[in-house]
Amino acid sequence: MIILGIDPGLATMGYGVIEVAGNSRRAIQYGVLSTRANEPTPLRLRAIFQGVNELLDIYRPDEVAFEELFFVQNVTTGMAVSAARGAALVAVATRTENLYEYTPMQIKQAVTGYGKADKQQVQRMVKALLNMDEIAKPDDAADALAVALTHANSMQMKKLFKIK
Amino acid sequence: MIILGIDPGLATMGYGVIEVAGNSRRAIQYGVLSTRANEPTPLRLRAIFQGVNELLDIYRPDEVAFEELFFVQNVTTGMAVSAARGAALVAVATRTENLYEYTPMQIKQAVTGYGKADKQQVQRMVKALLNMDEIAKPDDAADALAVALTHANSMQMKKLFKIK
Repeated sequence: MIILGIDPGLATMGYGVIEVAGNSRRAIQYGVLSTRANEPTPLRLRAIFQGVNELLDIYRPDEVAFEELFFVQNVTTGMAVSAARGAALVAVATRTENLYEYTPMQIKQAVTGYGKADKQQVQRMVKALLNMDEIAKPDDAADALAVALTHANSMQMKKLFKIK
Repeated sequence: MIILGIDPGLATMGYGVIEVAGNSRRAIQYGVLSTRANEPTPLRLRAIFQGVNELLDIYRPDEVAFEELFFVQNVTTGMAVSAARGAALVAVATRTENLYEYTPMQIKQAVTGYGKADKQQVQRMVKALLNMDEIAKPDDAADALAVALTHANSMQMKKLFKIK
């Protein structure tokens, strides 16, 4: 099964594609979609929408997982990220309903076993769980892999405990 | 020329379609796209995206104007509106670059001549400017007509003063 993880953002949106087979997980691809601050917002949103559509075309994920924006310190940033998240969610939702969202705390808990883990701990666990040679860069790509891993583990939990 | 005005929202998105010919403006259609609070957000965003696409199919606007979210009192609501705005902007931006945004103050100024006008003043002026028999209902639809009128007046200003 192929899972696409997305960490939404307007300037930089992280993505991570993993393959899950039983207990094994491997990273297929990861990176970021970037948009320029000097472009009008609608064109930046369009670039994100089209970029996510390209990811869906290339990797044909079975399921897609998003990091949910739960709390923001800066309202202006929060609104920009929300608009970008809307553009990305729409790209996915018009093609599949196999779409899941996880809060930052759920992601930290699933990847490190500790809901308040710091960024470095998450990145090291992503590297370990995916048997990677190096920590994924940039940060947003590592975060997106963490979202995909969270979904992989969450499916396993559902299977073990027969939760629907 | 046909102008589509949009007042974004997740639960209720107002739209208003007007026709502009010289100094005359008339309302062609107005209303709201609604989504249900008990549906998952991605499906609500998809409904907005598809709804805006339908408006574009039906009315084939030459230009589209959005009310810009400028300031929010409630962060959670602001994020929901931003995501909805992202979904609607993407629907338009993938089809046309004739897309404009106006702040609430610009809209009040353009429609009533006073940037701090209240909702009722705006609604009465929308009714008068469009020669309507009644005030447009619901409020979000009247707001969307105000956005479309703002764009109509703004184009006229550009023409009069030769601003690009």
